[in-house]
Amino acid sequence: MAAVSKRRKKPAGSSPGSVVYVGVEKNTPVKVTRVRYSGDGYEASRIVDPSECRPDSSWPGVDWFTVDGVHNVDILKTVGANFGLHPLVVEDIGNTTQRPKLEGFDGYYFLAAKMITYEARSSKLKSEHVSIVFGQGFLVLFLQDPEDLFSPIRQRLEAGRGKIRASGSDYLAYALVDAIVDYYFHVLEEIGERVERLEDEVVVNPTVNTLRTIHDVKRELIALRRSIWPMREVVNVMIRDESPLISKDVKIYLRDLYDHTVHVIDSVETMRDIITGTLDVYLSSVSNRLNQVMKVLTVMSSIFIPLTFIVGVYGMNFQYMPELQWRWGYPAVWLFMLALTGVLLALFKRKKWM
Amino acid sequence: MAAVSKRRKKPAGSSPGSVVYVGVEKNTPVKVTRVRYSGDGYEASRIVDPSECRPDSSWPGVDWFTVDGVHNVDILKTVGANFGLHPLVVEDIGNTTQRPKLEGFDGYYFLAAKMITYEARSSKLKSEHVSIVFGQGFLVLFLQDPEDLFSPIRQRLEAGRGKIRASGSDYLAYALVDAIVDYYFHVLEEIGERVERLEDEVVVNPTVNTLRTIHDVKRELIALRRSIWPMREVVNVMIRDESPLISKDVKIYLRDLYDHTVHVIDSVETMRDIITGTLDVYLSSVSNRLNQVMKVLTVMSSIFIPLTFIVGVYGMNFQYMPELQWRWGYPAVWLFMLALTGVLLALFKRKKWM
Amino acid sequence: MAAVSKRRKKPAGSSPGSVVYVGVEKNTPVKVTRVRYSGDGYEASRIVDPSECRPDSSWPGVDWFTVDGVHNVDILKTVGANFGLHPLVVEDIGNTTQRPKLEGFDGYYFLAAKMITYEARSSKLKSEHVSIVFGQGFLVLFLQDPEDLFSPIRQRLEAGRGKIRASGSDYLAYALVDAIVDYYFHVLEEIGERVERLEDEVVVNPTVNTLRTIHDVKRELIALRRSIWPMREVVNVMIRDESPLISKDVKIYLRDLYDHTVHVIDSVETMRDIITGTLDVYLSSVSNRLNQVMKVLTVMSSIFIPLTFIVGVYGMNFQYMPELQWRWGYPAVWLFMLALTGVLLALFKRKKWM
Amino acid sequence: MAAVSKRRKKPAGSSPGSVVYVGVEKNTPVKVTRVRYSGDGYEASRIVDPSECRPDSSWPGVDWFTVDGVHNVDILKTVGANFGLHPLVVEDIGNTTQRPKLEGFDGYYFLAAKMITYEARSSKLKSEHVSIVFGQGFLVLFLQDPEDLFSPIRQRLEAGRGKIRASGSDYLAYALVDAIVDYYFHVLEEIGERVERLEDEVVVNPTVNTLRTIHDVKRELIALRRSIWPMREVVNVMIRDESPLISKDVKIYLRDLYDHTVHVIDSVETMRDIITGTLDVYLSSVSNRLNQVMKVLTVMSSIFIPLTFIVGVYGMNFQYMPELQWRWGYPAVWLFMLALTGVLLALFKRKKWM
Amino acid sequence: MAAVSKRRKKPAGSSPGSVVYVGVEKNTPVKVTRVRYSGDGYEASRIVDPSECRPDSSWPGVDWFTVDGVHNVDILKTVGANFGLHPLVVEDIGNTTQRPKLEGFDGYYFLAAKMITYEARSSKLKSEHVSIVFGQGFLVLFLQDPEDLFSPIRQRLEAGRGKIRASGSDYLAYALVDAIVDYYFHVLEEIGERVERLEDEVVVNPTVNTLRTIHDVKRELIALRRSIWPMREVVNVMIRDESPLISKDVKIYLRDLYDHTVHVIDSVETMRDIITGTLDVYLSSVSNRLNQVMKVLTVMSSIFIPLTFIVGVYGMNFQYMPELQWRWGYPAVWLFMLALTGVLLALFKRKKWM
Repeated sequence: MAAVSKRRKKPAGSSPGSVVYVGVEKNTPVKVTRVRYSGDGYEASRIVDPSECRPDSSWPGVDWFTVDGVHNVDILKTVGANFGLHPLVVEDIGNTTQRPKLEGFDGYYFLAAKMITYEARSSKLKSEHVSIVFGQGFLVLFLQDPEDLFSPIRQRLEAGRGKIRASGSDYLAYALVDAIVDYYFHVLEEIGERVERLEDEVVVNPTVNTLRTIHDVKRELIALRRSIWPMREVVNVMIRDESPLISKDVKIYLRDLYDHTVHVIDSVETMRDIITGTLDVYLSSVSNRLNQVMKVLTVMSSIFIPLTFIVGVYGMNFQYMPELQWRWGYPAVWLFMLALTGVLLALFKRKKWM
Repeated sequence: MAAVSKRRKKPAGSSPGSVVYVGVEKNTPVKVTRVRYSGDGYEASRIVDPSECRPDSSWPGVDWFTVDGVHNVDILKTVGANFGLHPLVVEDIGNTTQRPKLEGFDGYYFLAAKMITYEARSSKLKSEHVSIVFGQGFLVLFLQDPEDLFSPIRQRLEAGRGKIRASGSDYLAYALVDAIVDYYFHVLEEIGERVERLEDEVVVNPTVNTLRTIHDVKRELIALRRSIWPMREVVNVMIRDESPLISKDVKIYLRDLYDHTVHVIDSVETMRDIITGTLDVYLSSVSNRLNQVMKVLTVMSSIFIPLTFIVGVYGMNFQYMPELQWRWGYPAVWLFMLALTGVLLALFKRKKWM
Repeated sequence: MAAVSKRRKKPAGSSPGSVVYVGVEKNTPVKVTRVRYSGDGYEASRIVDPSECRPDSSWPGVDWFTVDGVHNVDILKTVGANFGLHPLVVEDIGNTTQRPKLEGFDGYYFLAAKMITYEARSSKLKSEHVSIVFGQGFLVLFLQDPEDLFSPIRQRLEAGRGKIRASGSDYLAYALVDAIVDYYFHVLEEIGERVERLEDEVVVNPTVNTLRTIHDVKRELIALRRSIWPMREVVNVMIRDESPLISKDVKIYLRDLYDHTVHVIDSVETMRDIITGTLDVYLSSVSNRLNQVMKVLTVMSSIFIPLTFIVGVYGMNFQYMPELQWRWGYPAVWLFMLALTGVLLALFKRKKWM
Repeated sequence: MAAVSKRRKKPAGSSPGSVVYVGVEKNTPVKVTRVRYSGDGYEASRIVDPSECRPDSSWPGVDWFTVDGVHNVDILKTVGANFGLHPLVVEDIGNTTQRPKLEGFDGYYFLAAKMITYEARSSKLKSEHVSIVFGQGFLVLFLQDPEDLFSPIRQRLEAGRGKIRASGSDYLAYALVDAIVDYYFHVLEEIGERVERLEDEVVVNPTVNTLRTIHDVKRELIALRRSIWPMREVVNVMIRDESPLISKDVKIYLRDLYDHTVHVIDSVETMRDIITGTLDVYLSSVSNRLNQVMKVLTVMSSIFIPLTFIVGVYGMNFQYMPELQWRWGYPAVWLFMLALTGVLLALFKRKKWM
Repeated sequence: MAAVSKRRKKPAGSSPGSVVYVGVEKNTPVKVTRVRYSGDGYEASRIVDPSECRPDSSWPGVDWFTVDGVHNVDILKTVGANFGLHPLVVEDIGNTTQRPKLEGFDGYYFLAAKMITYEARSSKLKSEHVSIVFGQGFLVLFLQDPEDLFSPIRQRLEAGRGKIRASGSDYLAYALVDAIVDYYFHVLEEIGERVERLEDEVVVNPTVNTLRTIHDVKRELIALRRSIWPMREVVNVMIRDESPLISKDVKIYLRDLYDHTVHVIDSVETMRDIITGTLDVYLSSVSNRLNQVMKVLTVMSSIFIPLTFIVGVYGMNFQYMPELQWRWGYPAVWLFMLALTGVLLALFKRKKWM
């Protein structure tokens, strides 16, 4: 997940609506696939030419195109032209730093979202830009990477079970966003487990590394929060909008989805609170350790420094030191020193320093 | 109480509205009980078959079903079908991580809540998912665990006293939610007592354990807050909704309930403020202890290190050290050392280090 | 002032509207007094039987009853029945943990407030539950304790001067709430003086006790805030409400009262900010003291430890140590040690450690 | 500037609308001056009797009275009666702790504000209560102190230039409030300079005094914020109000004034953020200094304590210590000690403790 | 970027609407340039006399004037008079501390903005005051400094490509503001890189300088936030306003621009969160270092102080010390000391202090 600020590489003052791919450079070819379905029929997924990615009023159901890559500007332009998309929409599709948003236009909706997944190898969050354009009878899905995270939905379509086959593109859009939000729950679970491990570690064995991990988890939560907050707004606008493109029936599902986004936000906030508490425990346990170290030093010093003084006294070479000639001088000094040590130890015990 | 994030175990992209039990696995059988009452009559609680859990327009009063377990998906589906519930509602009933919410449908309301209780054994908070579906003449209560926390209400019904027998299912729903909120007060009381103990402990005898407890209480408050905040919204929506399912008369009671939820929130926030203050006192008292330890070390060192030096001087073996031959050399050194100690003690006293 | 959470002792699930006294147990008898006034006449305060506490349409002015104790449930029920109060209202009157609120019913308003006073003996805040029910021609004031904090108002009535005699029960309600808010100012003044003392103490002579006091003041401010915030809302609702029970003329006074509640809130927030700053100064001055202690330790150790080493060298008993036989060996060692001390002192001076 | 809470000295329960001077006691006489102007004419400022301070419909322009002192209750009452002011308005004029507010009455507006200035001598903020009552053809300005901070406005009137002569009392009120807000900018500038000095000091030479100054600046910002926030609301209400007393033309100027109040608030918030950052730097630099001190102590101790032990060994008086008889024992010990010192120094260098 | 508070140098009480240049003094001459374009034609940029900067209804397209300097008050007044600008607008153009705002007047809009750029030399932020006045067929751009940051827009006009040539002054205003917001992204990128460097530095090698840099970045983020927050409002008002001066078509672009401002705000907030976390890591790593230093001191002292005591014992000169005569006394002491050291080392190892 990019560290601090998503960068926008267009030169300042350049024309708005000019489509530029903003993101890590790539050379992989871009595939466009099509799935068609209606209440009665289903056409399996197949690769099509970008120019075929256009509205087709002859199909009674939904035409679902997937463009698996947004780094080929020409394809974006072709598809945009075919569906009559506003230049700004095509620009936003190509901009992988675009924040989640929903915009309604004549005849179609444009929806941008962030899919967050956990990369197994690096155990780091990965954020992927997802754009959805949908209207009467069609939906175009633009993915940043050609991974197929939405295959369960395709399987549901193929199986023909559930509500999805009988519904329009609005329900498909809902299903896609629902899958994205479901991924948030998976990420939250991972982070939740890390937080739990941290909570134990911070008490049992806090190291400098613990602090580093706390800081990392905090940043992941900030990143999650940044993606999910506008998502909530997106779903909310979909529920409120009076457009005929979103049926009343689907709005009940969107209400449920809204509830899920609130749940994610809520969990993120809760974990932020807990991680902050964990940091307090960490800092305090560092302080406690210092205290412990200092107590050992103080006890050792306070006992042996006076003793060293005493033996120093009888190491002096004065000619006239009567004690030195005493028969029991040496044992007497030992006794005195033992007594002193006892007194000091008792004192430190009472202060609970030992 | 589950630590960090309530987990939602459904695979991402799976069909919404598919009923899956989300929670700790269980094998206990699910009992469905029915209580019937009206202004005139009362039918005592008895176990019924899930298929009998359906609307019965022949009864003039209220039909109250209790399903004591949501881990049997078949029963949920049967009951859902009998009452014509939306698939998403049945899904939410089976999802024990569902946040509190209220949703109005044609002919019924769906209300999800969290019941928070203190487990006596572990002295930990326990959160239980409670779902209520109510409409004209019926109310179905879904409990996560088969404990009967609502028996006082059943007793009130049986006794036939109070407003409850003469009112509809809306009042019963109110009474159930009111009982849930009352449990919050009990939990708050427990936490309040722990906070008070902490406030004393932090001054009298702060240990690493104190910090741990502060952190635990903080987390419990976070959990409480998370359950009660949406609850307030639930009650607010019930008051505002213009549905005929909730009578004007019951709204006065809901207004009072709303007031109670605000009271809970208020207390939670106040305790959070206080616990934060307690943490400050804790940290500061750790600092103070360090200061005290360091003062002892400094006083001991500052007095005995110079003395040790002095006796070291007269422990030197130089041939020409006139002092060593002096008759009163030894007592003079002692006098000097006593004087020095006196001066240093006076100094430290003035600095209030002793 | 009750420490953390105001407790509500009713068992969960018990019938709402059942009147139970919630608070510290008491056995003092409850007195009901009546004051009557109108533009022309005034009937001095006298004790009446609870059953006489009922609306009396024969009196042209205002009938003001004061019930000085809410721990006698029977009296509350009697009065409630006489005035036709909603069971929930009577319940709230008996619940001393009730938050401030205003509720309008047919024919009367119910207003709950907290009176905050400083107990002279313990120098602690004391919170008292005050309930006011008022309607056309009557006002019933319920006090938690039989102290007469509203006697200045009674005196104004008796004196017959001012607007109060000529106005209705709405103005009397305003006057009572105004007196309550005035008490907040007095409490704020007390706290303000403590804060000022703290600000001096924290710089001149910070002790562990200072921290304790900071924490106490913080808690008092939290308690004040908790009482005054809903109070503002209460006054605001009174201004906004279109009920004929509150005349337009009185609303000008309520606007002024609203202004006062805002002033109190403002002062509380300001003091919270200042007390937080004071805590920072405290913590920092503790740190500074540690620094000072450590500097003394370091200077003492850094000077005498090397010296002790030097004298230790010449305390060694080697047979071949030429220095020991030197004529000026002893003075030379002294000179060297003095020079070393000088150098070290100069160094510490430059570092500003002395 | 009064430290914590502005005090309100009226006894609780006293009659609202009774005019009492709340503030520091004073005996200076109160002067009332009048300036009259219209598009054509201008009557220079002259002292008038309070009884002459009344509406005079014969003058076609604006009648501007200035009452320079609010501690003479009789004058306030006289003027209030002459202009038919509501008793609460007159009370607020005499209450120097009144928060800024605007209240519209029939025929006039009452506006309270705080003028904040820097006292040159004490370099402390001084807050002055300013009240403005204006209506068709008149404006009465009440000042807490007889200083003339508004003389530039009088000069503009006299010079006859600008918009002010041709406009009504609404424009004059705007001009007065604008002057007050302009003073905020001057105060902000002073504080800004102190903040800049602090930012340097905290890095170059932080002392306990630095902390004190940080705390003082913080409190001044809190005080400023408290005065300017309600001011914004005052201006906002003036813009929104549909009263004929404020012309549409003046509202454009008020919009500009609103902008200035927002600017002040913004600057105050920014400075608060910066001063908080400065506190962090301060605390951290105190920590750094402690670290430095401890390093010196540790280096000194770690080098000399082992050396002292070594020389102690050869100061022992055992009869059979072969080393003591060795010819090169003494130089060998020195060599060993030098080597040890070298190793330790190298080690500390590598740890960057020196 | 001016440190704390933008200063406003006008004397308090001076006439509003009087044009005064507020900013750093300058003597550079002010150039006024004009660019004209319409769907068909384009007139290249050329210098014109200020008096020629006036509306010209004969040109069918857009007349774009650029005044590159606001320190010449006469030119501002001339231009203001030519376009019939309100005196307050001209005042705001000359006030370089003016906050971003949008104000609609009859026939024109006034828009103030802050352009933020990174000065390459000093690596400091530079804030520049930009004012835009636009209406039907004209746009006047006032720049604080004569640098041409908007040349890409001029180039687009000249090239005649894109939407800009065919659109009105509203689109040009949008393009200018869009360019300003694009500069924010560039600044954010720079800061983002510094934050990333800081995050590494704070773990690898934290110095006092790190803290200073953290504080600096924090201040830059505060400054950015202060400029961009009102900017969002400006764009929002442009979208909402129903004025015919902004066409519906341009509003789609403004919606996109609004989205960008939200993105900037979002990134600023995220970086603030991260920089705060970085400060925590810094402070904690300072604490950790102190701990490490103290451990070394404690280990050294705890080992050698007892040893020194032991050798001191046998340095005493008592006549009767049997051990001194023992044949193996000396080796026995060494053995004992080695054993003690071993035990202590083992102990410290177990405590993980070494």
